[in-house]
Amino acid sequence: MGYDAVYDKLKDECGIFGIWGVGQQEEAANFAYLGLHALQHRGQEAAGIVSTDGETLHVHRDMGHVADIFTAEVIARLKGGAAIGHVRYSTTGESHVRNAQPFAVEYAGGAVAVGHNGNLVNADQLRTELEAAGSIFTSSSDTEVIVHLIARSKVNHPPGSPAQLMGSVREALARVSGAYSLLFLTPSAMVGVRDPMGFRPLVLGRLKGQWVMASETTALDLIEADYVREVEPGELILVDRDGLRSERLFPDRPAETRLGRCIFEAIYFARPDSILFGRSVYATRHAFGKRLAVEHPVPADLVVPVPDSGVPAAIGYAEQSGIPFAMGLVRSHYVGRTFIEPSQQIRHFGVKLKLNALKDVLKGKRVVVVDDSIVRGTTSRKIVKMIRAAGASEVHLRISSPPTSWPCYYGIDTPTRQELIAATHDQPQIATYVTADSLGYLSLAGMYQAIGEKRETYCDACFSGEYLIDFPKRPAMARSLRVVGT
Amino acid sequence: MGYDAVYDKLKDECGIFGIWGVGQQEEAANFAYLGLHALQHRGQEAAGIVSTDGETLHVHRDMGHVADIFTAEVIARLKGGAAIGHVRYSTTGESHVRNAQPFAVEYAGGAVAVGHNGNLVNADQLRTELEAAGSIFTSSSDTEVIVHLIARSKVNHPPGSPAQLMGSVREALARVSGAYSLLFLTPSAMVGVRDPMGFRPLVLGRLKGQWVMASETTALDLIEADYVREVEPGELILVDRDGLRSERLFPDRPAETRLGRCIFEAIYFARPDSILFGRSVYATRHAFGKRLAVEHPVPADLVVPVPDSGVPAAIGYAEQSGIPFAMGLVRSHYVGRTFIEPSQQIRHFGVKLKLNALKDVLKGKRVVVVDDSIVRGTTSRKIVKMIRAAGASEVHLRISSPPTSWPCYYGIDTPTRQELIAATHDQPQIATYVTADSLGYLSLAGMYQAIGEKRETYCDACFSGEYLIDFPKRPAMARSLRVVGT
Amino acid sequence: MGYDAVYDKLKDECGIFGIWGVGQQEEAANFAYLGLHALQHRGQEAAGIVSTDGETLHVHRDMGHVADIFTAEVIARLKGGAAIGHVRYSTTGESHVRNAQPFAVEYAGGAVAVGHNGNLVNADQLRTELEAAGSIFTSSSDTEVIVHLIARSKVNHPPGSPAQLMGSVREALARVSGAYSLLFLTPSAMVGVRDPMGFRPLVLGRLKGQWVMASETTALDLIEADYVREVEPGELILVDRDGLRSERLFPDRPAETRLGRCIFEAIYFARPDSILFGRSVYATRHAFGKRLAVEHPVPADLVVPVPDSGVPAAIGYAEQSGIPFAMGLVRSHYVGRTFIEPSQQIRHFGVKLKLNALKDVLKGKRVVVVDDSIVRGTTSRKIVKMIRAAGASEVHLRISSPPTSWPCYYGIDTPTRQELIAATHDQPQIATYVTADSLGYLSLAGMYQAIGEKRETYCDACFSGEYLIDFPKRPAMARSLRVVGT
Amino acid sequence: MGYDAVYDKLKDECGIFGIWGVGQQEEAANFAYLGLHALQHRGQEAAGIVSTDGETLHVHRDMGHVADIFTAEVIARLKGGAAIGHVRYSTTGESHVRNAQPFAVEYAGGAVAVGHNGNLVNADQLRTELEAAGSIFTSSSDTEVIVHLIARSKVNHPPGSPAQLMGSVREALARVSGAYSLLFLTPSAMVGVRDPMGFRPLVLGRLKGQWVMASETTALDLIEADYVREVEPGELILVDRDGLRSERLFPDRPAETRLGRCIFEAIYFARPDSILFGRSVYATRHAFGKRLAVEHPVPADLVVPVPDSGVPAAIGYAEQSGIPFAMGLVRSHYVGRTFIEPSQQIRHFGVKLKLNALKDVLKGKRVVVVDDSIVRGTTSRKIVKMIRAAGASEVHLRISSPPTSWPCYYGIDTPTRQELIAATHDQPQIATYVTADSLGYLSLAGMYQAIGEKRETYCDACFSGEYLIDFPKRPAMARSLRVVGT
Repeated sequence: MGYDAVYDKLKDECGIFGIWGVGQQEEAANFAYLGLHALQHRGQEAAGIVSTDGETLHVHRDMGHVADIFTAEVIARLKGGAAIGHVRYSTTGESHVRNAQPFAVEYAGGAVAVGHNGNLVNADQLRTELEAAGSIFTSSSDTEVIVHLIARSKVNHPPGSPAQLMGSVREALARVSGAYSLLFLTPSAMVGVRDPMGFRPLVLGRLKGQWVMASETTALDLIEADYVREVEPGELILVDRDGLRSERLFPDRPAETRLGRCIFEAIYFARPDSILFGRSVYATRHAFGKRLAVEHPVPADLVVPVPDSGVPAAIGYAEQSGIPFAMGLVRSHYVGRTFIEPSQQIRHFGVKLKLNALKDVLKGKRVVVVDDSIVRGTTSRKIVKMIRAAGASEVHLRISSPPTSWPCYYGIDTPTRQELIAATHDQPQIATYVTADSLGYLSLAGMYQAIGEKRETYCDACFSGEYLIDFPKRPAMARSLRVVGT
Repeated sequence: MGYDAVYDKLKDECGIFGIWGVGQQEEAANFAYLGLHALQHRGQEAAGIVSTDGETLHVHRDMGHVADIFTAEVIARLKGGAAIGHVRYSTTGESHVRNAQPFAVEYAGGAVAVGHNGNLVNADQLRTELEAAGSIFTSSSDTEVIVHLIARSKVNHPPGSPAQLMGSVREALARVSGAYSLLFLTPSAMVGVRDPMGFRPLVLGRLKGQWVMASETTALDLIEADYVREVEPGELILVDRDGLRSERLFPDRPAETRLGRCIFEAIYFARPDSILFGRSVYATRHAFGKRLAVEHPVPADLVVPVPDSGVPAAIGYAEQSGIPFAMGLVRSHYVGRTFIEPSQQIRHFGVKLKLNALKDVLKGKRVVVVDDSIVRGTTSRKIVKMIRAAGASEVHLRISSPPTSWPCYYGIDTPTRQELIAATHDQPQIATYVTADSLGYLSLAGMYQAIGEKRETYCDACFSGEYLIDFPKRPAMARSLRVVGT
Repeated sequence: MGYDAVYDKLKDECGIFGIWGVGQQEEAANFAYLGLHALQHRGQEAAGIVSTDGETLHVHRDMGHVADIFTAEVIARLKGGAAIGHVRYSTTGESHVRNAQPFAVEYAGGAVAVGHNGNLVNADQLRTELEAAGSIFTSSSDTEVIVHLIARSKVNHPPGSPAQLMGSVREALARVSGAYSLLFLTPSAMVGVRDPMGFRPLVLGRLKGQWVMASETTALDLIEADYVREVEPGELILVDRDGLRSERLFPDRPAETRLGRCIFEAIYFARPDSILFGRSVYATRHAFGKRLAVEHPVPADLVVPVPDSGVPAAIGYAEQSGIPFAMGLVRSHYVGRTFIEPSQQIRHFGVKLKLNALKDVLKGKRVVVVDDSIVRGTTSRKIVKMIRAAGASEVHLRISSPPTSWPCYYGIDTPTRQELIAATHDQPQIATYVTADSLGYLSLAGMYQAIGEKRETYCDACFSGEYLIDFPKRPAMARSLRVVGT
Repeated sequence: MGYDAVYDKLKDECGIFGIWGVGQQEEAANFAYLGLHALQHRGQEAAGIVSTDGETLHVHRDMGHVADIFTAEVIARLKGGAAIGHVRYSTTGESHVRNAQPFAVEYAGGAVAVGHNGNLVNADQLRTELEAAGSIFTSSSDTEVIVHLIARSKVNHPPGSPAQLMGSVREALARVSGAYSLLFLTPSAMVGVRDPMGFRPLVLGRLKGQWVMASETTALDLIEADYVREVEPGELILVDRDGLRSERLFPDRPAETRLGRCIFEAIYFARPDSILFGRSVYATRHAFGKRLAVEHPVPADLVVPVPDSGVPAAIGYAEQSGIPFAMGLVRSHYVGRTFIEPSQQIRHFGVKLKLNALKDVLKGKRVVVVDDSIVRGTTSRKIVKMIRAAGASEVHLRISSPPTSWPCYYGIDTPTRQELIAATHDQPQIATYVTADSLGYLSLAGMYQAIGEKRETYCDACFSGEYLIDFPKRPAMARSLRVVGT
């Protein structure tokens, strides 16, 4: 408790994609563009692609959606047969291109670009050390810390050689602590790395002789790459003109026996069509829904999902319970910009722009509403009220995950503990707040049972508070002197 | 047959919205903006709002989505307590602002703006007549024809008076033939009209003393207006400072006994959360799905909808058949711009950008795929192939409407008859083309039975070829001298 | 007197350009773009080009500068071997694309586009008549009136034929009264017309077999067309596949003996490198300056122009007087957008953004400042004060034209009579207001003597109040119901 | 000779501006915006402003003109009472925001921003050293080298203190060699520095208690700041809450006796209304023109400047020679974007877009054309030909500076020596190439005599090849691995 104020630095949700096929179609940037499009749900604020023609890194980063940033003209400028890309959502106000990724620099070893998904818990401390040693920072993201560590590596192989790159990446990552799936690109190689506990996903694919790495398999599907396997926790994969090499990231350390694969990716963040940690996300959510029906049955007329993330669990709940499934809430496809609320205020305005309740379907019905999680409770409250206003006689809220009581420090955007309703209220209080007739959360144990997985391979700190990697308990020293802008 | 080449003029799918609340919050444009946002699915190419402060009509029209066009700055310029708006999708290449609506002009009666949903079958003929009488045209839309007819009306009441407006609208519409739901705005009144057969929807709502008219009730829901009733076929509603007046559009004509409410709105075009022609769209589609299961049962493991329009019918099919429902196809939320296909081609590229098949869900399963209609057959073929490529052992395609064999001339964008696969192929041929193991269409009779409606109140020309309003059988004389651009 | 409130309608300053070279390089739009660029000084608010490929008119119009509007992509869409273009500056707030030109429509005769430089004095009256006959208006410019008159012409030749076009243009222009230089484009011909008194300039040029018409010869120079001659007052030139035909606009009327060539074009509006009405603009202004020195000598140390329009006259003044010429005011090349004045106010902020006074040059000097005209007096006052603040011991203001006392109704943007300082103050009062030590205007007679021209061939109503074409003395009936916007 | 290939790195022409007035109007960014606008001629490619509110540095940088980049909204985000700004023109293709300035970073000493005008001759070498020590580079500009040196300074005062800032700036600049006028901004201080030889200008001004520094006095004039004096060569000025402090940059070094003030600023680069190195630029150029007439007289009818930079010298030449001055070339005010040349090529297209020759003025005249310099000779050739094509009987080219034979390595953009026509051709050859009837350059000695200055205080390496600061004679090692883009 009281950890909440610790982190005020930039927290990112992100997606990464890389393709290496030098000598082939020389349209790596176009594939990266499509791959990022398929990962757009992982970050809608900024995006970037860095390509290489074997000599120069070509960079383009901007604020906005992938489809808006990467025009045909921009892609034409991103030359070469290899590329990495990044989509990013930031939780703070620091929406500046200076924080967009991949981060690309020149250093003694040549040019290198990095895209990062995850969160380092000792980034502030490393930054302070690096600054003390004379480093300058142009962004506020963790990624720049990693690049500095690479640039300061003592590894001594020929600049630009695979040995130099792998050595300096290892040396840099040996210093950092936290969650990371990373893609590096130099003019001569692409490297993918997943941290030893495997918090964030990263998969390997193959497209007619080209190697692909991506946060989720949905990016492979779009470009018709075959899914080969996950990049394993603690694995380093290097691809260059000599092909693919897989090595242990830290050969001198024992393999982690406790893994930290993010269960929240399975619950909410990943796309349902992805294979995550070797499992179908859709099937996982479906199983959660079935289990939820077992744990929290209720007599009702309809099972209604909160679209889209609640759909598979609601189908599972409906199947298990025998209660008919209905799409009683419709989601608009056209949200994206800030709307101005009329002075004559509209109830639940923010939610209403995204969701509408179907009166004819819900009227007079006892409704089980299935959602994936409750964060602050404010949205759930609006949804329950909307459904009741549409005529439902009873509204039973069912959540296909345990109560979210702890903030994530490993790469999922969550508010501070004070803002998490489950951290400060018990379940009856939450039910009252969201105005539901009943409320049921999936149990922690039930969650793992539902999918037949061992808890020891997952991180569920957001539910349990059991953080697998320690982090500074005191707030980072206030950074009073800062740079913001473009 | 052979009618297909008749119409090469602009065909629109559109949505309209109007609000009259002069003297109230003076933020009619903001409500129109929200209303159009809720109608965005009816036209994504261009949008416009015309507001009035009682003296001047303020216009803003542009290409693009509602949320992009109407910035806070633009809305601030659209002053006044009354406004009408329009969203438009055009089927031809004429994507120019000059064809955007509402169409606003000055004429002897003052200033008037018009938004139109529908299609006139005698627009070309009227245009030729009007041009012969000295009219000039700045757009290629039907709407300009209506405005010219109003301007040339012989009605002789004081300019700007309700009598003048209603009289000239009546005189103009007496000349036109076809489908129309229309909203007119002048500095002193708003008029809503629905053609005598009621092809296109138009509803009336009330928001704290303000009158609202919209293509669909979903627009009422978003702004929290109460749904009052449909504007009836052949009804003219005038709203001005004296309140609302309802009159028959053509008092000297007998009421139509044969109505032409568009069944395709119910099948596909309208939003599932709308009340259309007095019925829940969701419930209608659900009923179609149940009936489809009765008419075309098949042993299978899963019922999978083509999202989003196929979802309610698929739920109905699953319920009726007892086969489990699954979201085996995932739809991307981020489509919108043209993507460049890599030279190394991707199979089903266009469909893949929108849909992905879930391998883990579909593998080894006998799948019933439910879609709302088949137009050219090319998309259905890609979807069936995607599902089979994802591992389905059988793919049974079920369509929740009869075969689409005839083009629509009343406001729904359909290709020419030659391009409609059901016009040129029988069902076994279609099944072969789309590579489905079996194919079943909902029967025409079954469709009406499913919802307990009389066929005499609907237009189903796209299925039956029974066109309720005659149209020129020969192609319009080629318009060799044209103006295109902005 | 009291005429000032008469005109509140749109007043334009404009430039026009046309090229006809069908069958040649098919890049007429590019030439039009360059031609308009050379005419940019005649209107910086909006611009448009209409091209034709012999079948369709391709239009592009937008707000802004020529170089910003016409990207390579836009020009590529403006296909064909003939094009007309227009630049426009409007004096009212009606800065909407709907008022941009060329105005392009379809009518019974096919498609036609029109670009207009000038001002009609009976446009309001004609508009009222046309509206009474059922015409609708989408803009507030005079040009739309002309198009309606063409569309309603009773001329009866084959549609699209030269006879039809020339006949309907003649019939239309026979109705209008005022100043006009016009270019028309149809898929089969280009027509240029200058009103019988020749208020606005229009020249004819030739570029390797292509015919060019433009407001000023500077547009010919840029594209290397040869200057052939002026289009004469009352002349109609038609260019089509059969070549160029010159006819009298009104063959049944006697030629005007009193011409109305705008002397203010020579004084200020035209570019100094143009040949205007057969005379070098630079030489004209130089001669005005010399005459000004004869009429208003003063002992001084320096002659300083207000750049750029005052430069040639200042050189002339310096030559005649023997007083050294100096560029004591520097003009910024980078003005264009609205600047925000700091709350700590800057003296003469608006003028200072454009001009800076050279202290080292002016300090302790008796300075003759030469400007082309004084309109409201506010800018002159700021300039005199700036020069004095820079250290000048005396500031003598010399104006190379007579006092501007009357508004222009024939196409030059002038404020109302009340706002013209010379209409309400005598010269000593003006000198006091602008804080000059002395003030001298060129005399009306001296102006014509300086260039050896007869006053009967020029309009100098802005100086003399002798309006050559009558106009409505009472304000047009307030147009209470209007349309504004895009 | 042979030095030309040495520098392929980024060469900038730049302007800088800074204002410190914390506690006052808090609109430093607006003043910076106006100041940069007045310095726009020093760099039109990119611009940036960094402001501070005493805690955070707020940055905005973008490609384009000052007036386009800094909208009211952007300025509102640049909070605080102090700001520095930068305009930049780059000679290489590296037109990316990543090279825009001020360059702003966080380091151990807090946040710092730097704007640089000049060029370091040992930047590549320092960069290599810094990279070897683990520094990373995100841009290709010299400025980042300076920032790294500051961050690595061994000075040990409290972070954020004036002593720390001044100490680290001194330590950093002690390492660099070349030309630099620099402005630094931290949340607590602004520092201005000019290199010991004073190559680039920097002036100090005062605006009601606020201190201002700028490249040229024209920036002071616009905001009505008083010109106090030049920042002297080798001077460091610190402004903070305690006021202004002036110190010697290198107190342990003897003052330079040989100064290197850039004579080319006086000839061409600075605005004529600036006071440069204590002298009026206008008066300097006027004196050059008079001297030129003494050195290279010729019987002629007109003296015509190449506008705008040639105007003061042409006036001087005309005065001295008694030959009448005429603006025989008109410059367009609307150049800015790339124009597409028609396939039917236009002679001298590039020059023609900017300049037009006045036929009526030039016809049959013997013309003396005065320009400030000849670089490659191609533009001069086009101008001479244009004047002759306009009818001049003789064209005598007079250049108000000596032959430009050597590239500048100290901050003025010049091509390589091979491209300088005066480096490879003698004067008769140049006259022949530019097709002039005669050619005369101002002599080196005459240049200094004309203004009564000692050559020992100026750098004239571009004319003499006498480089005051040595630079690497061999090309920098090719940087094969680079990052380009945004």
